[in-house]
Amino acid sequence: MRNQRNKWKEKLHEIIYEADTREGKVFDVILLIAILSSVLFVMLESVDDIQVKYGAALNIGEWILTILFSLEYILRIVAINKPSKYIFSFYGIIDFLSTIPKYLSIFFIGTHSLVALRALRLLRVFRILKLARFIGESNNFVKALKASKAKIAVFLFFVLILCIILGTVMYLIEGGDNGFTSIPRSVYWAIVTLTTVGYGDIAPHTAFGQLIASVIMILGYGIIAVPTGIISSEMTKTQDLHLNTQACPNCGEDGHDDDAAFCNHCGSKLHN
Amino acid sequence: MRNQRNKWKEKLHEIIYEADTREGKVFDVILLIAILSSVLFVMLESVDDIQVKYGAALNIGEWILTILFSLEYILRIVAINKPSKYIFSFYGIIDFLSTIPKYLSIFFIGTHSLVALRALRLLRVFRILKLARFIGESNNFVKALKASKAKIAVFLFFVLILCIILGTVMYLIEGGDNGFTSIPRSVYWAIVTLTTVGYGDIAPHTAFGQLIASVIMILGYGIIAVPTGIISSEMTKTQDLHLNTQACPNCGEDGHDDDAAFCNHCGSKLHN
Amino acid sequence: MRNQRNKWKEKLHEIIYEADTREGKVFDVILLIAILSSVLFVMLESVDDIQVKYGAALNIGEWILTILFSLEYILRIVAINKPSKYIFSFYGIIDFLSTIPKYLSIFFIGTHSLVALRALRLLRVFRILKLARFIGESNNFVKALKASKAKIAVFLFFVLILCIILGTVMYLIEGGDNGFTSIPRSVYWAIVTLTTVGYGDIAPHTAFGQLIASVIMILGYGIIAVPTGIISSEMTKTQDLHLNTQACPNCGEDGHDDDAAFCNHCGSKLHN
Amino acid sequence: MRNQRNKWKEKLHEIIYEADTREGKVFDVILLIAILSSVLFVMLESVDDIQVKYGAALNIGEWILTILFSLEYILRIVAINKPSKYIFSFYGIIDFLSTIPKYLSIFFIGTHSLVALRALRLLRVFRILKLARFIGESNNFVKALKASKAKIAVFLFFVLILCIILGTVMYLIEGGDNGFTSIPRSVYWAIVTLTTVGYGDIAPHTAFGQLIASVIMILGYGIIAVPTGIISSEMTKTQDLHLNTQACPNCGEDGHDDDAAFCNHCGSKLHN
Repeated sequence: MRNQRNKWKEKLHEIIYEADTREGKVFDVILLIAILSSVLFVMLESVDDIQVKYGAALNIGEWILTILFSLEYILRIVAINKPSKYIFSFYGIIDFLSTIPKYLSIFFIGTHSLVALRALRLLRVFRILKLARFIGESNNFVKALKASKAKIAVFLFFVLILCIILGTVMYLIEGGDNGFTSIPRSVYWAIVTLTTVGYGDIAPHTAFGQLIASVIMILGYGIIAVPTGIISSEMTKTQDLHLNTQACPNCGEDGHDDDAAFCNHCGSKLHN
Repeated sequence: MRNQRNKWKEKLHEIIYEADTREGKVFDVILLIAILSSVLFVMLESVDDIQVKYGAALNIGEWILTILFSLEYILRIVAINKPSKYIFSFYGIIDFLSTIPKYLSIFFIGTHSLVALRALRLLRVFRILKLARFIGESNNFVKALKASKAKIAVFLFFVLILCIILGTVMYLIEGGDNGFTSIPRSVYWAIVTLTTVGYGDIAPHTAFGQLIASVIMILGYGIIAVPTGIISSEMTKTQDLHLNTQACPNCGEDGHDDDAAFCNHCGSKLHN
Repeated sequence: MRNQRNKWKEKLHEIIYEADTREGKVFDVILLIAILSSVLFVMLESVDDIQVKYGAALNIGEWILTILFSLEYILRIVAINKPSKYIFSFYGIIDFLSTIPKYLSIFFIGTHSLVALRALRLLRVFRILKLARFIGESNNFVKALKASKAKIAVFLFFVLILCIILGTVMYLIEGGDNGFTSIPRSVYWAIVTLTTVGYGDIAPHTAFGQLIASVIMILGYGIIAVPTGIISSEMTKTQDLHLNTQACPNCGEDGHDDDAAFCNHCGSKLHN
Repeated sequence: MRNQRNKWKEKLHEIIYEADTREGKVFDVILLIAILSSVLFVMLESVDDIQVKYGAALNIGEWILTILFSLEYILRIVAINKPSKYIFSFYGIIDFLSTIPKYLSIFFIGTHSLVALRALRLLRVFRILKLARFIGESNNFVKALKASKAKIAVFLFFVLILCIILGTVMYLIEGGDNGFTSIPRSVYWAIVTLTTVGYGDIAPHTAFGQLIASVIMILGYGIIAVPTGIISSEMTKTQDLHLNTQACPNCGEDGHDDDAAFCNHCGSKLHN
């Protein structure tokens, strides 16, 4: 009997956690639809006009999805051998955070807007669609991103320090009357400017401030080339290193084309 | 007689659908001028000052062009063997949509502004000028774009999901009083920010909101490198594969390495 | 005597049009300073506060420079054999346009602001500094730009057409009440958005308008990769073609390193 | 005794200026924390709400850090053989500028905001973390940046000249009523536009002005590809030269082609 329970558990695990069987795929598709609908419901509900008209219907829809997600959450815990492994995993925490606010909203009125946390569930879309596989006909893409991650982090760190210094300088130059009321706000402005976003909610008014702002803008326009250069060169490098590693059995020459049948150095036949 | 009609139809087909004969080229040039004028007329008419002064003249001009386009539409149907093939083609639908509103405007007053749909006709410019051929001295360009299409689509999909999540978070942080009145609006703001457009019609006011906004901006500034890296490396890759044009004297296979001494397909010696 | 006049003319030509002699270089430096001062004067004069205080002094300075530029203009005409060649050249027209407004301002009061056209003179800076030479330690840079010029022009043309169509669509969706008062204005907005500039002077207010705007922004964010990819790959290609073309006298193998003394294929000595 | 003093001085030099010993590393970490806290204090103090509540506590914290920094400054002078070498170095000046304002604020009330100059100290973070080493697993990155520095400087200079000319043209077209009150301000606007920042504090209102603005935007959107292309191609080039690490067994020369059978320097056979 214990054996049978295990079998049932294994089956459940297969359906919920894997996507190789027919049932697993159906489960994934239903989950995908449920996630997208729940995000849609939450988005629509936040629009005042729609909330007034269709609020009740949306609320019922949300409750149905919340119960479904709760069921999924319980089944995920049941189907795994070490439930704590799921509960404290990245997706486990997201699943919990996106399900609980609806229940809380019964008891605490103010917490209803937290239902919006359900949008975090969208991250699971990446897992379900296994987008990485879709990109990775050449796995090089992911490799290049990983290889350049450190460099880009240093670059963004450099940008941040630059923004703190430049923001502080602008705070001294422009002052509170022109909207640069505090250093954090000035740093925020510097980031808005350097990244070429440019809201315009804060903008320099003094001639000297506009001069510094111009320097920041041209700087931001110029150094955007750095992350681009890093990734471009990394991707070019990665693919260069992905030549065929097959060696000729006669002369040992490698670097053959993928479709080579004969060694291009000594003419011997290559094993396929 | 039926034969003669077919001949006449073939001639018409040649003029309208092809551009190899002198008449075909003349037709294309006239069509190009007509399209550009009609777009210009529509643009000018939408400007209030010009509409008041030259409205009557523009209206006449539009009617002339509408009749010409109607004629072209009819001729295109006549000249082709399977009219449905044209009517339901991409350009067939555009031609219809850009011609009909002028007629509708006689009967329904409100529909006049739909005449602006004529701008869609500009797409035909690409076909007439055969711009692809102009680019494609190296067809690699188009190849690289096609090869990176999937990756860029995944990237943009990732950006969209990111914007939905970040927009929702900002909706919770900032709230309606600061302009983030609904989740769709907040998502719109997140897109405006991440793509570094930055209108400033909605902008964060709380310190925490500005912090998140800064993260989004730096993120947007950093990940713009991804599509650029994809296309750059794809284009570099494509051209690298087109170096050696040497063909094997035995089997005719080409695409050998520059330093190949033997054909990698049949093992024959290559002439240097 | 005629011979002597020619000699004097040749000397003048050398000083003004060339930069190989000491006098020619001195002339260039003085001209550079004069151009920069004149631009500075014009810029300062346009600032109201400075105009009130130092207007008279700036006016005198401008007159001195105007007379110097007039002299230069006359000398350039005298020193060349075919004056019309200079007068109707690009720089000839700029020199004329940047000198004449000051004289006109005596007779016509309104024309004084045209003095600002003097800024066009800054273009001559490129010629004097021969910046191209500075870049062109590798002439590849200029080559790559020229090679990608056509492709980038097509790309920008494509962007323009896209903006006209999208602008027209937004005009229909948003309408005059939301700032999209005419098609040209909507097209202007589409350009502001697609290029990720985003002033915010015009911004969509309807939900559907914001949806289309989001699409435009993500599009603009994605296709900026195209010109970058074109130039990057072009520059990489150009340098790839600059390998050593020296062939081994023994085995005929080429593609040697620039500093190779022996063939890397058969070991024979290479002729340097 | 003099010898002993030198020994003590050497020890101090090791701790303060180097990071190889345990004490040196501890010193660096403490300095890092002190710098980050001092910047945090200054940032918080500039926020009005926080200043009101915690102003006194922050002031005490700042005084403690100021005294620590003063001590560090004195020790740095003591520990070095030629104090002037430190005092007038880049970091020496920054250390001085970031320490002195707090003392000045006792005597001169207006100077307190200059304490914000402490943010300049953040530059030392780069030195302490030796970020360059972190990036430079491939030193190519720094090499590529240095190699492209000149080209990018020329590019930015070109952008600046372009902005001056276009700004002047816009000043003539739009005039003071539309916000283009002076040429420097118009140039500032041109920079804001070309770099795709787009605050919207100044924006063209006339049809012709919007046309020119559109051209500037499309230009800015297109030529951002230039610095990116420069760096990308430079980085690709640099790494291409670093492929083969095989050294000749005879002369020790490295940098051979991957398929080299003989040393290209001395003609000896290479071991495969």
